[in-house]
Amino acid sequence: MTFGEWMQGISAIGFALLLCATSATAQDQPKLNLMPMPANLQTGTGDLRIDSSFSVALTGHTEPRLDRAVQRFLRQLSRQTAIPLSGKPSTKPTLTMHTDHASKEVQELGEDESYTLSISTDGAKIDAPTPLGAMHALQTFLQLVEVSPNGFAAPAVTIQDKPRFPWRGLMIDVARHFIPLDVLKRNLDGLEAVKMNVFHWHLSENQGFRAESKKFPKLHTLGSDGLYYTQDEIRDLIAYARDRGIRVVPEFDMPGHSTAWFVGHPELASAPGPYEIERKWGIFDPAMDPTNEKTYKFLDEFVAEMTKLFPDHYFHIGGDEVNGKQWDASPKIQEFKKSHALKDNEALQAYFSQRVQKIVTKHGKAVVGWDEVFIPGVPKDIVIQSWRGQESLAKAAAQGYHGILSNGYYLDLGWSTARHYAVDPASGPAANLTPDQQQLILGGESCMWAEYVNSENIDSRIWPRNAAIAERLWSPQSVTDIASMYSRLHTVSAQLEWLGLTHRTYYPQMLRRIAGHAATPEQLTALRTLADVVEPVKDYTREASAPAEPTSATPLNRLVDAIPLESDAARRFSEQVDKFVSASCRDADAAAQLRVQLITWRDNDARLRPLTQTSFLVKEVAATSQGLSALASVGLAALDHLPKGSPAPDDWKAQQLAIIEQAKTPKSQLLLMPTPAIQKLVEAVSAGGNCVAAK
Amino acid sequence: MTFGEWMQGISAIGFALLLCATSATAQDQPKLNLMPMPANLQTGTGDLRIDSSFSVALTGHTEPRLDRAVQRFLRQLSRQTAIPLSGKPSTKPTLTMHTDHASKEVQELGEDESYTLSISTDGAKIDAPTPLGAMHALQTFLQLVEVSPNGFAAPAVTIQDKPRFPWRGLMIDVARHFIPLDVLKRNLDGLEAVKMNVFHWHLSENQGFRAESKKFPKLHTLGSDGLYYTQDEIRDLIAYARDRGIRVVPEFDMPGHSTAWFVGHPELASAPGPYEIERKWGIFDPAMDPTNEKTYKFLDEFVAEMTKLFPDHYFHIGGDEVNGKQWDASPKIQEFKKSHALKDNEALQAYFSQRVQKIVTKHGKAVVGWDEVFIPGVPKDIVIQSWRGQESLAKAAAQGYHGILSNGYYLDLGWSTARHYAVDPASGPAANLTPDQQQLILGGESCMWAEYVNSENIDSRIWPRNAAIAERLWSPQSVTDIASMYSRLHTVSAQLEWLGLTHRTYYPQMLRRIAGHAATPEQLTALRTLADVVEPVKDYTREASAPAEPTSATPLNRLVDAIPLESDAARRFSEQVDKFVSASCRDADAAAQLRVQLITWRDNDARLRPLTQTSFLVKEVAATSQGLSALASVGLAALDHLPKGSPAPDDWKAQQLAIIEQAKTPKSQLLLMPTPAIQKLVEAVSAGGNCVAAK
Repeated sequence: MTFGEWMQGISAIGFALLLCATSATAQDQPKLNLMPMPANLQTGTGDLRIDSSFSVALTGHTEPRLDRAVQRFLRQLSRQTAIPLSGKPSTKPTLTMHTDHASKEVQELGEDESYTLSISTDGAKIDAPTPLGAMHALQTFLQLVEVSPNGFAAPAVTIQDKPRFPWRGLMIDVARHFIPLDVLKRNLDGLEAVKMNVFHWHLSENQGFRAESKKFPKLHTLGSDGLYYTQDEIRDLIAYARDRGIRVVPEFDMPGHSTAWFVGHPELASAPGPYEIERKWGIFDPAMDPTNEKTYKFLDEFVAEMTKLFPDHYFHIGGDEVNGKQWDASPKIQEFKKSHALKDNEALQAYFSQRVQKIVTKHGKAVVGWDEVFIPGVPKDIVIQSWRGQESLAKAAAQGYHGILSNGYYLDLGWSTARHYAVDPASGPAANLTPDQQQLILGGESCMWAEYVNSENIDSRIWPRNAAIAERLWSPQSVTDIASMYSRLHTVSAQLEWLGLTHRTYYPQMLRRIAGHAATPEQLTALRTLADVVEPVKDYTREASAPAEPTSATPLNRLVDAIPLESDAARRFSEQVDKFVSASCRDADAAAQLRVQLITWRDNDARLRPLTQTSFLVKEVAATSQGLSALASVGLAALDHLPKGSPAPDDWKAQQLAIIEQAKTPKSQLLLMPTPAIQKLVEAVSAGGNCVAAK
Repeated sequence: MTFGEWMQGISAIGFALLLCATSATAQDQPKLNLMPMPANLQTGTGDLRIDSSFSVALTGHTEPRLDRAVQRFLRQLSRQTAIPLSGKPSTKPTLTMHTDHASKEVQELGEDESYTLSISTDGAKIDAPTPLGAMHALQTFLQLVEVSPNGFAAPAVTIQDKPRFPWRGLMIDVARHFIPLDVLKRNLDGLEAVKMNVFHWHLSENQGFRAESKKFPKLHTLGSDGLYYTQDEIRDLIAYARDRGIRVVPEFDMPGHSTAWFVGHPELASAPGPYEIERKWGIFDPAMDPTNEKTYKFLDEFVAEMTKLFPDHYFHIGGDEVNGKQWDASPKIQEFKKSHALKDNEALQAYFSQRVQKIVTKHGKAVVGWDEVFIPGVPKDIVIQSWRGQESLAKAAAQGYHGILSNGYYLDLGWSTARHYAVDPASGPAANLTPDQQQLILGGESCMWAEYVNSENIDSRIWPRNAAIAERLWSPQSVTDIASMYSRLHTVSAQLEWLGLTHRTYYPQMLRRIAGHAATPEQLTALRTLADVVEPVKDYTREASAPAEPTSATPLNRLVDAIPLESDAARRFSEQVDKFVSASCRDADAAAQLRVQLITWRDNDARLRPLTQTSFLVKEVAATSQGLSALASVGLAALDHLPKGSPAPDDWKAQQLAIIEQAKTPKSQLLLMPTPAIQKLVEAVSAGGNCVAAK
């Protein structure tokens, strides 16, 4: 039975009656817990109850991967609801899933990932051309299941869905801090949940070479401190990813970012060794010798081995951030540049890139590289991954090259989710491309660079924010409402916990370590109150503001490592203030609410103080705690002005703004996030009576 | 170097100066985070800083198990502190650990588990006769490490330690709900942390047969719904336990509690089959046929297989709760009783027990059984596990039999930790035994019966409370201070998280499921406020008060499943009220604090109300939430009386006590734990002015 036939069958039994007439477009997003938002969605009436009799039947094309997907789906459904599900087949299955045909043996870019999902009070039906779409549909179903007044249920709905971009990825840097396999696996579970389909595995760096090479074992034995993935583990992860509709693109960064290679193979470098694994962060001098034929012979054998290990058609060769110092210092390399008419190091790197691209092509794969590998004239099957920005992506597309966007999706920079969410690979300079050129923009990848993450806090840097980036890459371009995004993100974040992601549980645990395990509940609450309204310094300011030069041996146990990258509490406070001020500060209930919050913050420093005496990790943030207290006092003083009905005097305002300026200076690498909202309050009560909304 | 020599060496360099003169006995417990409390402890001055150079050296006897223990120790130390530790050997090790000699190939009851541990500002030293003591010492060290004003550190201390009882165990029933291997493993990690040395694996029940039998595969294939441990997994768990100084005692319960055996082998039963796996809880009729020689032939072969699989000297044959109905209904069995002069079913069971004991003895093992297997005349090498109580334990000891106590340590009954803690195997009737007879009391076991636990909440039923039982069985009998116990338990509970135990993280997650993932933070806080002050109904009242007959298919997703078994918030409130009342209600600050708490509770119902509309799991507890609100209003009314300085009128008191009586009635199987404290407030203000401490 095709989907069309099934739809007819369903209408015959009155399904059409269950559907509301409201056809939801992407613009008027209904209140359904879905992220990414589907391309098309019609809400119905009633819901499908989930109980222990829940069962699934597969029709059409079947394969073991689909069976496993169903088992995983049932396990997940059971976790979310705590309803034991036997998964035994039933003559009247609750969910019928029809798959037309197989997908490719090795998952390819651009395969059909579409699906339809219909849920009525009687049952549910999935229809998909390939297992990829079918698996996406199961994830949509899981997001729809929620507690209801009468039990667990999924609302009646009809969804027709497909992705906007075919390349929707997450990169994890496993080199700067090693990330164990089980942590990667739970993150792949997360990718599946939000329908991302590429895991970009950044496997080598100055700080570590993380993949076993049987051909050149000194790479991983000497370049990893023993922290690497065996080839069996790599195959295991690739199979795990394939089961979830995810391609695995390995990256071996060259010719720069490669010190760890040189520990075992100094002959590859442009300056004599010996080399040691780099322990610091930054851009370093060591680079492969692009003038030595032995380098290419080595890379040929290495790429031969790795392209066999990694089945994906794409092979990432990095190519970013070569500072050229080793090249400049080598007379031999300078000579080579002259004799080959390579006018600068950029040209030399282009020469290197083209040689490596030929090697990769020879082994049947296509190259992905960072912006730097885009050199006019390179073969058209490469993919440019842009860390530089939309401009560089559009430029490549204009010349007929494929690209994916990562600029704007760097998870380690601590941006708000809203800021990531606003970045669209097809907007800005790309908007001026021809439709054909626009097609060359394949999508994007979020990037988790690992200077400041390890197994303990990495999930919290990726999730839930990565779900919003996944939505940007999957959903219609018109899906842009920030309030809706945050509201759905809140729900999805809670659901992601059932996958075993630790992005929420790690936080109280790290706070307990900071406070000391003997801290009282009240002291812990005080630490939490402070932690909830601070964020780490943004972008690349963290190194500069570090108390000591950070290295891979620096413990990630400070408050800056423990707090989420985005303060929900500060965002909510800011929304409250906006609403209050824009209503001319006349809402007495709202004022009372703000006051309660501000009093809690003002008094928090005194509650936290005992811990500053017992824990060096709390002592470090004592000034930030005092800053919160001072800031809250300013906010309270602003509220105190309101009943007077006249503008606050200028000297008062100047005084308050001085305190606010102080609060803006990061201390112990922390930003006090309620600062702008409190400034807004001060400016509002200073502007006129009662108060005037600031811009 | 022996410990004595080392101590001399240390004094030569001034170690003695570092030690305080105060020799801490068990009575004046110092404020160190240790559970169980060591037998002897002297605190010193200063502390040993933990940094990334931390290293361990082993001297004396070595074996791979000790190396693994050190690696595990370092991993744990690194988790607790987030300090990366390479574990590389050093010429100046931070911790030197000397082990005299090997322990037994198969760990035996009563092996030497003693150790000494000395920590100074310079380094630490462990000295132990056997690896068992050495491993205990490492756990003591881990408990001592805490955040300090200058970094992570362990305080200077000298400890000489050994257990009071040689048998300190935890039983987990994996039959009523299957508990996966990884959950058992993290609980074994917990046992190691609190120095328990027996894992009693309750493997068969009416509701499931959980061990693979190659000899009789129908036992596990038909008796387990596919949820069983393979023999490889069992060997793996036993090795895992041995690595942690833990013996594994298997239990195959017979002749009762055995329906699951009969699904595949109805011929073993006393009534014809067919049988199905039991889905309900309680005591059931099916029992093995003690009159059939084929039963013993089967058990002989079965015990032969299982005693090979489980290396421990002890083999638990259950023996509890046979209701005798199948025996009474069988003319053949009645005939047998007559012909063998067995006057009642008890005698018949004694006959069965003796036959099975002979089989177990024949296979080189000794029997453990519940009280019922204690029949005068049975061989002296059996161990009686008493679920009935201290009386029965003492009676057995008086006749020369070994025993372990479990009565008083049933974790599923929901007792307070203090109540478990007060139970001592050597007190009560045992106190009247001769010293030799007292020696026969080997220790005890806490028991986790699994009607209402699964992977999700089992850790929370075992931990942290089991640490207090572990202390009862390890520490000197004089260690009984409840306040000290709770204070240390609070700390140990937080530390246990680093082992991966989920006894704290599960709770907010289950509350989010109950609330619905879309619940606002404020709504979640309201649910948490209620959840924090209720406890599940106690002892065996849960079945009786269930909304529908519970079975193994009943989802464990209600508030009663989610809350910890003991309310810390209610305990703290009760302590506050006690203090306030005993100071004649004159402390205005204390009154204000109580008022804040009571207002939060009073107003909580209104905050929670929206969720009662959207979640059936919150709707279920709406009456309890209203009860808390009413109760808090009573408490506030009591405080309102205080300024009047005269006793509250009798009719007022009667009115308040009526509301309190209502609050005492459990609703949705929940007890409102602040009730007694609020009653105390009412009685205090009714008794006289200002108020009079109630008894």
